[in-house]
Amino acid sequence: MPHKTVIVGGGAGGLGAAGGVKAANPEAEVVVYTEFEDVAYSPCGIPYVHGKEISDFEKLFLATKEQYVKAGIDVHYETTVTAIDPKGKTVTVEGEGRVSYDTLILATGFDYADPGVPGGDLENLYYVKNIRKAMEWDKVLDSVKTAVVIEASPLGTEMTTSLAHRGIETHLVDPNPWPLAEMADPDIMAPVEESWTEMGVKAHFNTTLKGFLGQGKVSAVDTSDGEIPCDLVVVATHKVPNARLAADAGLKIGSTGGIIVDERMATSAPGVFAVGDCTEIPHGLTRVPLQGLTGSHAYAQGKAGGNNAGGGSRTYKAVYVPWGTPAGKWVIGGASFGETTATALGIPYVVGQAQGISRARYYPGVKPVKVKLLAEPGSLRLIGAQMVGQEGIKERADFLAMAVKFGFTFHDLAAMENVYSPAIGALNEPIVVAATNGLDELRKAGKL
Amino acid sequence: MPHKTVIVGGGAGGLGAAGGVKAANPEAEVVVYTEFEDVAYSPCGIPYVHGKEISDFEKLFLATKEQYVKAGIDVHYETTVTAIDPKGKTVTVEGEGRVSYDTLILATGFDYADPGVPGGDLENLYYVKNIRKAMEWDKVLDSVKTAVVIEASPLGTEMTTSLAHRGIETHLVDPNPWPLAEMADPDIMAPVEESWTEMGVKAHFNTTLKGFLGQGKVSAVDTSDGEIPCDLVVVATHKVPNARLAADAGLKIGSTGGIIVDERMATSAPGVFAVGDCTEIPHGLTRVPLQGLTGSHAYAQGKAGGNNAGGGSRTYKAVYVPWGTPAGKWVIGGASFGETTATALGIPYVVGQAQGISRARYYPGVKPVKVKLLAEPGSLRLIGAQMVGQEGIKERADFLAMAVKFGFTFHDLAAMENVYSPAIGALNEPIVVAATNGLDELRKAGKL
Repeated sequence: MPHKTVIVGGGAGGLGAAGGVKAANPEAEVVVYTEFEDVAYSPCGIPYVHGKEISDFEKLFLATKEQYVKAGIDVHYETTVTAIDPKGKTVTVEGEGRVSYDTLILATGFDYADPGVPGGDLENLYYVKNIRKAMEWDKVLDSVKTAVVIEASPLGTEMTTSLAHRGIETHLVDPNPWPLAEMADPDIMAPVEESWTEMGVKAHFNTTLKGFLGQGKVSAVDTSDGEIPCDLVVVATHKVPNARLAADAGLKIGSTGGIIVDERMATSAPGVFAVGDCTEIPHGLTRVPLQGLTGSHAYAQGKAGGNNAGGGSRTYKAVYVPWGTPAGKWVIGGASFGETTATALGIPYVVGQAQGISRARYYPGVKPVKVKLLAEPGSLRLIGAQMVGQEGIKERADFLAMAVKFGFTFHDLAAMENVYSPAIGALNEPIVVAATNGLDELRKAGKL
Repeated sequence: MPHKTVIVGGGAGGLGAAGGVKAANPEAEVVVYTEFEDVAYSPCGIPYVHGKEISDFEKLFLATKEQYVKAGIDVHYETTVTAIDPKGKTVTVEGEGRVSYDTLILATGFDYADPGVPGGDLENLYYVKNIRKAMEWDKVLDSVKTAVVIEASPLGTEMTTSLAHRGIETHLVDPNPWPLAEMADPDIMAPVEESWTEMGVKAHFNTTLKGFLGQGKVSAVDTSDGEIPCDLVVVATHKVPNARLAADAGLKIGSTGGIIVDERMATSAPGVFAVGDCTEIPHGLTRVPLQGLTGSHAYAQGKAGGNNAGGGSRTYKAVYVPWGTPAGKWVIGGASFGETTATALGIPYVVGQAQGISRARYYPGVKPVKVKLLAEPGSLRLIGAQMVGQEGIKERADFLAMAVKFGFTFHDLAAMENVYSPAIGALNEPIVVAATNGLDELRKAGKL
């Protein structure tokens, strides 16, 4: 009997899963339901089209609808799944009724947290998500003079940078003392804040959102710092897992609101898998569950979960979270966690840091790279890292996440060899200098 | 009694060593002898000034002579050391006579291999090394229409690219079938060769140098491929360790011609250390001795050896050789060794490779990145890697050298998380794809 897998959600997780099922079982019937008009575009690119770094939305499409047909993946567009029944092995689809499956994969993604203030029904509140809507919003942006971004979340940080780059007067409202406060340390974000100021951004930190004001259309944002007149608001509150279908069906939900999965991406219900932003995944060191990871994580989880749903056997392990993004005129990034998170979790650490450079200091285009490494006292095993610079942040973040995972110590990193070639790398790799400085500090303090 | 360290050589190794001695013992007397007019400049930058990527030679100076005086490092310029006497603990210095020391550090660098053909005494044969001479040669280059580069060594590769970039008709003569054949694989170099052709370079591979022709000044190079008329020849033959002083004093010399050192950078003579290009260092996996490493290696060896010479205790271990350089319109790099070297050494391997990209494929500035990984059959531990691309090659090479050193497997690399942010990294990291492809190939072949 042919195997049938139903997938709810057409984002990176859902499509990764579709490919995973087919990889494990090329004969499997794979049906994907999505509420949207499209699949296989990059939502992560939307802020950069708004910012005019990318010339048009068409570039964000990665595959045509025909390609999925050819691959044997049956995508039902603009179709909502309203319920799942793991016991009966069916999903309820609007307009299709009950549809049966052999295995089910939930890839229902995330929602933005409700800002929970009055005025949420006004026009010109922009929640960045769907590419078709983004195309319409992009036309609106042509006539926007002043915009307010709510929260310096990862998306809020990108949108602030993009709107300022586009020439819109941009205000950023955030309740924390510095941007991206939940993941990045203030010393890492300080250059970003400076560059935003240079770009004309008006940042309002330690500032609480009180409401959206206006008649029909938003005309101002009310905050603890006063009213900010504006033509448009980008609501970039933090992501919360969209786990409604799972919760309604009695699947186990974790402390973050994400669906609990095991290393096979299997939920608590037999035959039901979940991947991407609707799940929560433990941090590799702390085992604290995390949600709101990246499209790259969603895609990898999709491949693993899809493979298992198709009869294969793949695991997806706890995460060490390399991250990075442009912010203002800088690129920030890191792996695992920084000082702020470590302190909040009560995790002791020692620091090694360095202000390095990306090329020989005389080579055109050389940029600063600040590296901060956190290690466990005593063992000096790396437990986290944060960086601010321009070149090579992504590649260093990828490496440092592996360094955390495999327990590299300050000694290991201080003894690391590095490429030296004036146009592409400095005599001293900043990671090596940071680890060396960390050891020197410990020596001076008599702790080594 | 105050401690006195004599250092012979003022390059990256010698100056790293001077700093190392002072770090271990700030009171130590440190005397550096150099044959040249300067120290503390970057010889690695010279090709890029010739190529006009860097505007002038002054930029290559990293520190002033006064800074060394202030740091308590006594540099004797244009001063030749003619002999060392490890038993008597003296060196013989031209114009100074016998000078005593407590510890001695040899940092005598390298020479270019003698091309061993007639005509070596003609004018306009340029050996790239000393910055003052480079300044003079740069003026000569203004009137050069056609140049020949002898050997596609690392320097030859850089000089070929730079001279072509400067607009000089450049011929490259090399006895091997492809450039950098001693370190890089032909598939990695193929795009470089193509881009050289686009830049107007005339490459002569499988071509033996027979002599330099001309009256007083070189006017042609004689090769197995015929005569190549030219105004100037860059002799970029491979580096050989300059170990004459050490050999004359009976210190142990290795199979490469480099001074043999232990992990403290100590030679076979008590109290005598050696660092940088005059030494040989074992490869971490094969234990085959290597010479001709980079300025970054020399500097790190200098710091370790200097520290030990000053009474401290530091080790410098076997190397895994991350490398990288611009070449033509590309950047090439890798870690440990490639297929060519593995085959030559009789080391069995399996391959995983991928043609990836450096950013989201729709993001402006996205570049291809080809990654090839070599692993030990069975264990699938990484033993080498080679890459050709543009962005992030240096950082990936640094990481991959650590991956070889710490025995990461294809499984580890295939499960690696990666940053995804359109402007700085693609959904799928090319290293991850290469490892995944390697595993897929093995599965298909029934070997996994």
